[in-house]
Amino acid sequence: MGPHPAVAAIRLAVRRVLHDVLTDVQRSTENDPPLAREQAQPLVLVACSGGADSMALASALAFEAPKLGIRAGGVTVDHGLQPGSDLRAAEVVVRMTALGLTPAESVAVDVGRDGGPEAAARDARYAALDAAAERHSAAAVLLGHTRDDQAETVLLGLARGSGIRSLSGMAATSGAAGRYRRPFLHIDRQTARKACMVQSLPVWDDPHNTDPAYTRSRLRHEGLPALEKALGKGVVEALARTAQLSRDDADALDSWAAQAETSVRDATGLLECAKLYALPPAVRRRIVRRAAIEAGAPAGSLFARHIEEVDRLITGWRGQGAINLPGKVVAQRQGGRLVIRQG
Amino acid sequence: MGPHPAVAAIRLAVRRVLHDVLTDVQRSTENDPPLAREQAQPLVLVACSGGADSMALASALAFEAPKLGIRAGGVTVDHGLQPGSDLRAAEVVVRMTALGLTPAESVAVDVGRDGGPEAAARDARYAALDAAAERHSAAAVLLGHTRDDQAETVLLGLARGSGIRSLSGMAATSGAAGRYRRPFLHIDRQTARKACMVQSLPVWDDPHNTDPAYTRSRLRHEGLPALEKALGKGVVEALARTAQLSRDDADALDSWAAQAETSVRDATGLLECAKLYALPPAVRRRIVRRAAIEAGAPAGSLFARHIEEVDRLITGWRGQGAINLPGKVVAQRQGGRLVIRQG
Repeated sequence: MGPHPAVAAIRLAVRRVLHDVLTDVQRSTENDPPLAREQAQPLVLVACSGGADSMALASALAFEAPKLGIRAGGVTVDHGLQPGSDLRAAEVVVRMTALGLTPAESVAVDVGRDGGPEAAARDARYAALDAAAERHSAAAVLLGHTRDDQAETVLLGLARGSGIRSLSGMAATSGAAGRYRRPFLHIDRQTARKACMVQSLPVWDDPHNTDPAYTRSRLRHEGLPALEKALGKGVVEALARTAQLSRDDADALDSWAAQAETSVRDATGLLECAKLYALPPAVRRRIVRRAAIEAGAPAGSLFARHIEEVDRLITGWRGQGAINLPGKVVAQRQGGRLVIRQG
Repeated sequence: MGPHPAVAAIRLAVRRVLHDVLTDVQRSTENDPPLAREQAQPLVLVACSGGADSMALASALAFEAPKLGIRAGGVTVDHGLQPGSDLRAAEVVVRMTALGLTPAESVAVDVGRDGGPEAAARDARYAALDAAAERHSAAAVLLGHTRDDQAETVLLGLARGSGIRSLSGMAATSGAAGRYRRPFLHIDRQTARKACMVQSLPVWDDPHNTDPAYTRSRLRHEGLPALEKALGKGVVEALARTAQLSRDDADALDSWAAQAETSVRDATGLLECAKLYALPPAVRRRIVRRAAIEAGAPAGSLFARHIEEVDRLITGWRGQGAINLPGKVVAQRQGGRLVIRQG
C-alpha cells in the first residue's frame, strides 16, 4: 500500500523541485573534475517555522532527498517577537532532527520596523536564511508557501492597484541564483495539514496567523472566505493561476520595454517623446517607470498615478511644468525630449 | 453658487465624453457638404434603468448636451422579468421626458436562457440598445457603469482565473464603432446616488441588485465589503486601476502576438514549434490561443489549462498524442509543426 494521497502529493511536489535543483547543480559543476563532482553531495535546506506547511515540507524533503543523493537540512528562524520564541525554535530543531535533517539549526534575528511589522519580519527572515545558505553552501532553500498563500499574495497585490506585476504573487524560484524554491505553490494548505496529521507530525499554529491586526490574517479568515462564498470554491485556484499568467505577461512586457528603450533614445541618450508616443501605452509606461527608477526614484514609492502624470507629458502635451516624483526625481519635457533626473 | 460637488462631478464626466463623441462625429463627417454638417445635430442616447447611476447619467446628459449642440435622448429596456416591469418602464420614460430627453422610449425584450440569467439579460439588453441606436441614428449610447461596477467586474474576471484580459473589466468605449461610452467608470456609486438626491430625482432600486441568487449581488453586498474590511477602503479604486492597466497590457501583448504569428509560420502556413519555443511564454500562448479559435474552438470554452496542455507540445515534447480542445478542435505536433484543426 502506498502512502496517503496527501503525503504522496507533497512528496511528488518536492521530488520535482529536487530534480530541478540537481539539474542546476550538475550544470554549474560540469567543468569540475569528475572526482570532486561525485564526492560533493549537494545540500538542500528547508525553512521551517514548525507550522503545518513547513513541517510537511520538511518531512517530504527528509524522505525524498536521500533517494536522489541530496543531503537534507533545516533552519528555523527565531524572530524573537513573542516570549518563549527561543524555546519554540529549539523545539522545532528537535523535530527537524527527528526527521533526520542535518544540519538542523535555529537562527535568532532582530526584527526592525521598516515597512511595517510584516515586511520587517520578512526582511529579517530572508537575511537569516541567506546567511544560513551561504554558511552551509546550500544548493537551495525550500519554502513552504502553499496555493492559499499565493492566493492571498495576489489579493494583497490587487489592493495596491499597481498593475500586473503586483498580481504575479510569489515565484516558484526566486532569490540570488534561484536559491529559494517553493514546491507547494500548487498544493493547498489543507493537503499540507493532512500530510502532517497522517504522519503524526506535531505542528505549531502561529498566533500571528489568526491575529486580526495583520492584513494577511484578516484576508485569510475574513476576506477570502467571503470571496469564496460570493464567487464559488474555485477562487483560490483562480487566483493562483492568475499569478502565473500575470508573471509571464509582466516578464514579456518588461523584456519588450527593455528592448524598445534603446530605440527611443536620441544620440545623446535622451528619450524622444515622438518615438515614445508611437509605442503601445503599456510599453511606454514601463520605459517611463524604468527611467524614473534609474534616475533615483525608489521603486516602492513610485505609483501608477506618478507614471500616468509623466505619461501625459508625452500624450497630452500642453506646456505642463516639471513633475515631482519620489526620491527628489523630476520629470519634464524639453524640446521634444523627456528628461528625468534627480533635482 | 455652483452646483453640488456630486452634480459637478457627474456633469464633468459626461461633458468630457460628449467632447470625444463630437470629435469623432466631426472626423467622420468632414467630407460631407458644409450645410449638411451644420444642420445635423448628433443624437446621444442614455441607457436608463431608472436606478441611481443611470438617472444621474440621464440628468447630466440632459444638462450638458444642449450646450454642445447635441440632442439628448433616452432608452429604457423592459426585460419583462418581473410583474409590472412594463409599468415601471413607462414610469422611467416619464422621468426621462421630464428631464427633457427626446426621444424617451421604452423597449421590451424577450430574455432567453443562454449563459445563465445575468448573461441572457445582458445580451437581450445590448441587442435592444443596438437596435434603438440604429433606429435613431444615434452617435453614441451612454451607459451608467460606475467605478464600483468596474471593481465587481474585475473580481468576477479574477474568479475565472483566465489571465489579464479577464481582469480588464469594462472599456470606457466599446461596441461597434465605439458606440457605447461609460462616462462614470471613475465615479463611485455614492456620488451618483448623491447627485440624484440633491437634484430631487426619484430613483428605483432594482431588487436584482440585492438578490443573493446573483453572483454580482453577493459580490457587492458580501464579497467586496469583506475585502475592504481586510485590505482597506482603497480596494475599489485599486481594482478599477487594475482594470485599466490590465487592459493596456493585454492590448500590447495581443498586438505582439498578432505580429509574431506571421514570423513563426512556415511556407505552407503551419506553426513551427522551434520558432514558437523561442518566443516569451506569454506571447507563445496567445498565438496558440488565436490558432485554436481560428480553427473553430469557441473562445469562451477555451481555458488556460487547454492552452497549457497544447503549449507542452512545444515546450515539453515527449511524443504526446493529439490534444482535444473544445469545438472538436484537435491540436497535435507533426514533424516539428503544431497542427491545430477541427477533427
